[in-house]
Amino acid sequence: MSATAAQSSRNNSTRTRILEAALEILSRDGPAKASMAEIARRAGLSRQGMYLHFSSKDELTYAAARHAFEVQHANAQEMLASRRPFTERLVGALMAEYASLYSGTRSRAARFWQGYEAPVIDRIIEMRNRFDRSFVELLAGALESDGAVIGPDDPHARSFVDLATVLVAAARGLTLSTREISTKDRAELLRIAVTRLCAPSR
Amino acid sequence: MSATAAQSSRNNSTRTRILEAALEILSRDGPAKASMAEIARRAGLSRQGMYLHFSSKDELTYAAARHAFEVQHANAQEMLASRRPFTERLVGALMAEYASLYSGTRSRAARFWQGYEAPVIDRIIEMRNRFDRSFVELLAGALESDGAVIGPDDPHARSFVDLATVLVAAARGLTLSTREISTKDRAELLRIAVTRLCAPSR
Repeated sequence: MSATAAQSSRNNSTRTRILEAALEILSRDGPAKASMAEIARRAGLSRQGMYLHFSSKDELTYAAARHAFEVQHANAQEMLASRRPFTERLVGALMAEYASLYSGTRSRAARFWQGYEAPVIDRIIEMRNRFDRSFVELLAGALESDGAVIGPDDPHARSFVDLATVLVAAARGLTLSTREISTKDRAELLRIAVTRLCAPSR
Repeated sequence: MSATAAQSSRNNSTRTRILEAALEILSRDGPAKASMAEIARRAGLSRQGMYLHFSSKDELTYAAARHAFEVQHANAQEMLASRRPFTERLVGALMAEYASLYSGTRSRAARFWQGYEAPVIDRIIEMRNRFDRSFVELLAGALESDGAVIGPDDPHARSFVDLATVLVAAARGLTLSTREISTKDRAELLRIAVTRLCAPSR
């Protein structure tokens, strides 16, 4: 490894360490109360050292959200490509894609947004929307190649994209559910959704 | 009608007028910027006249949210009790129960919460949760009495409450969707969900 490559790899892992520290502190304290000094400390850096990577809390928030979405998306892709049975792959991918940021109660989700200015919210939502669109396409592809059924006996389902959209809606709705649903119960409910939505003629 | 009854009915309709004006202004401007004076004007009252009914913006917000949820819930119940075909009744009830407050983009939904203090958010969410629980029970009852299928051929669906929970999750997920989904498309996607989730052995 050249000196430059080593430097770049070290910067990369420092960056990831900061992003993970930021996610932890931001989701615990909310953006208004989260302290940049505490995030730096958690990442093992001086505050000045952190500012070399991220010059503002908004910039750090945005990068941390992107990092979380990327990790979730990569886990979901890996699950879709795995050798598990059809239903388990789909349930696993839905659980992975909507794993962390929206988990917990509605109250926590609503509070997550407090303290952010509208432009930051809009950027993060637009980013999440891009991941969602990409995930719906991935899922629709998996449904098509792996045996989901859209037949002439089914007047309503028009496309694999429609089925994927409904599945994603259910997965997202369950993460913000009325009651605290355990991860196990969420997976069980998604199993119902996948089984019934995707293979009605079994 | 006695003088007291007439007075009470007039107070009632004044109250409703204020609540509807408040919903309009609050959802347009957000709670931070919404003006109590403008809400009073919209309701055809003086600001002092309005304060006889609601002594603070938080109290008005809470009452306006309850009013909106009650109207949605009543419409959903009416739809479930109607004489339309099974699928249309269910789709109609889901559309009615999740009609207005969460509609629009995620950005708008996220902004809705900005400017509220945590205690107000928690009270409104707890109230919404109660409506959701009641709606899940109503829906589960309708599924059970109206022919949804849970059979020995289906290892996953454990109860009508589970099916209702998945349907509600899909309905809520669709109101906060990635793309702007038109009301017509939302109904079409819910029709897929209802048809496939509730009558898999057709």
